[in-house]
Amino acid sequence: MLQSSIEARIGNLLRQLEADGVDAFWIIQPENRRYLSGFTAEDPQLTESSGSLIIGPKERLLLTDSRYTEQAKAEATAFDIITVKGDLIAEFPQILSKIGCRRLGFEAGYLIWGTYEKLRKVIEKEEVGTVLVPLENRVEDLRKIKDQHEIEAIKASIGMITNIIQQVPRWLRPGTTEKQIAWRIEDEARRRGAEAMAFPPIVASGANGALPHAVPTDKKIAPGEPIVIDAGVRLKGYCSDITRTLFFGEPEAPFMELYRIVREAQKRAIEAIRPETPTDVPDRVARDIISNAGYGEYFGHALGHGVGLATHEGPRLSPTKPETLLPGMVVTVEPGIYIPGKGGVRLEEMVLITENGAEVLTKDLGFYPME
Amino acid sequence: MLQSSIEARIGNLLRQLEADGVDAFWIIQPENRRYLSGFTAEDPQLTESSGSLIIGPKERLLLTDSRYTEQAKAEATAFDIITVKGDLIAEFPQILSKIGCRRLGFEAGYLIWGTYEKLRKVIEKEEVGTVLVPLENRVEDLRKIKDQHEIEAIKASIGMITNIIQQVPRWLRPGTTEKQIAWRIEDEARRRGAEAMAFPPIVASGANGALPHAVPTDKKIAPGEPIVIDAGVRLKGYCSDITRTLFFGEPEAPFMELYRIVREAQKRAIEAIRPETPTDVPDRVARDIISNAGYGEYFGHALGHGVGLATHEGPRLSPTKPETLLPGMVVTVEPGIYIPGKGGVRLEEMVLITENGAEVLTKDLGFYPME
Repeated sequence: MLQSSIEARIGNLLRQLEADGVDAFWIIQPENRRYLSGFTAEDPQLTESSGSLIIGPKERLLLTDSRYTEQAKAEATAFDIITVKGDLIAEFPQILSKIGCRRLGFEAGYLIWGTYEKLRKVIEKEEVGTVLVPLENRVEDLRKIKDQHEIEAIKASIGMITNIIQQVPRWLRPGTTEKQIAWRIEDEARRRGAEAMAFPPIVASGANGALPHAVPTDKKIAPGEPIVIDAGVRLKGYCSDITRTLFFGEPEAPFMELYRIVREAQKRAIEAIRPETPTDVPDRVARDIISNAGYGEYFGHALGHGVGLATHEGPRLSPTKPETLLPGMVVTVEPGIYIPGKGGVRLEEMVLITENGAEVLTKDLGFYPME
Repeated sequence: MLQSSIEARIGNLLRQLEADGVDAFWIIQPENRRYLSGFTAEDPQLTESSGSLIIGPKERLLLTDSRYTEQAKAEATAFDIITVKGDLIAEFPQILSKIGCRRLGFEAGYLIWGTYEKLRKVIEKEEVGTVLVPLENRVEDLRKIKDQHEIEAIKASIGMITNIIQQVPRWLRPGTTEKQIAWRIEDEARRRGAEAMAFPPIVASGANGALPHAVPTDKKIAPGEPIVIDAGVRLKGYCSDITRTLFFGEPEAPFMELYRIVREAQKRAIEAIRPETPTDVPDRVARDIISNAGYGEYFGHALGHGVGLATHEGPRLSPTKPETLLPGMVVTVEPGIYIPGKGGVRLEEMVLITENGAEVLTKDLGFYPME
């Protein structure tokens, strides 16, 4: 993590906080925390934090416990590391007094209701006078636009999963199960030094491919049926997310037709991606092609989503809530057709919005068997 | 999941809800959801749910989306499955009106502040008149006492991880790294059909063992240093959690001494476990032994925690907030001594509180090299 990136990110956030009229912002969301500080620790459990940030014009605090003090000092070099001994919420009024914070922003889309209430009550009891101000997507919005270091990290993550998925056809034997392929993908990712999978790999063959979020089963992969492989790794924090639909042997005829439609929808959608385009436009391009081919009802999800420190982040390419595509955004383009009881075809590329258009980051993978 | 278990659990919950003065309870926490319904789906992301329950004297609703409808119908047979098409919060007022719910309990320790606010506002706007009532630990408290089926599931989970950890000494070769051992443990768990690891395995050798929550590294395991192995699997929903400290070759002398103290502390603590004993008593027994040996400052964590659908659940065996041990509770007993820069020794058993005392569930694993 280059220090210059951290400084730029904090600078952008501080401008936003000034507009929001808050003195400081309390950041608990793990990817937001990593983005702004470089602190890479994971949260041990959903309701157990490894640390949080308080950022204001004069403060850069990283609050953690003794388990993480050393790591925080080594990684979050732009921050003052505060090791909290007891209950963080009980310590909060003192910290707020010390930094003179009258209006504290918090992550409304992430803070637990009960924690908020405890904090509100202790602030009241200790008569600190701080007002808690709900803020949404302040860091998430910044994260949508990737800087050069982030794009390099995403490319490296794509390189690793590309290399692994390219080997899948060699692993297919009569009797191979979905789970065996999924585990092999994970095993290869680990051997190559991935921090983690970006998400549990999907290996869905035949009728299982009709479930967009299928979990790999002990089902044996049969010749001719489509196999949806959707996988990604996390490398230096950054995720990849690629889908290919493969065939073991000769594809059954109806799936060749579905494949051509999905690929056409994907290509046209990618052509529609450029700066200033609203996010619903590429979705509509893909959706129209699939609908006109008679399969509109079998494409139930949005066209794509942003990818970065999280596998799913902004912007969404969907028919609703359009926003504007901007250079530096990285999105998936993943149309699919899912025929219940029969099978599915999904193809997913990752695309970088550039100054002039779009760059497909995942093209080295190949695997367009119909072309 | 036996239907009789589900009925008993819902019956217990309804008695509690009557005392709380609510008409129904909205349950979003994944393990609570599984415990009460049998619905096994995971939440795809922290802020993305696969479903929630509304339980009242006359209602048993499972709200989900189309991705999970079939699974919910197959698994949660005691529930009416409602497939929500759009935004769940927008649909909520209609659901509340339909069931005539004037006071709705919600999980204060789990619901996101922003979601609560959206729900509160839409209820206000639609003039449904429902009051939102924060409740804490209602299902978590029920989950502390395991029924016979749960105990069998926990024993099966322990059986699997026992079998795997027993093989670890055979995997140790000069040059073996922590990561290699950790991955092998995970690989074996998958081959044997574990749903997942209960938590990422800890393999911490030498100085790394001084970190209670060490992450496996590329460090090579050296002869004579202690290796803390802390691992568990999740099988049919239920977790196991076992720690052994092994040695590759002859233990270095100071660690033999630490080992004897930790094992003594563990044995005495287990002897102190029986129904009606406060949870701080076994903690104190172990802590006193370690302190009297001069290592009190090196045992920084609580003695243990409950294990069930979650790896960490109630009750906690700790010096603070004592509660009463009761038959059917399953807890870990895991004293440790961690010498910064040198290494650590931790030993962890899982113990079932019985009518008359306690049963060590993890004793088949053996590995008490000093005995």
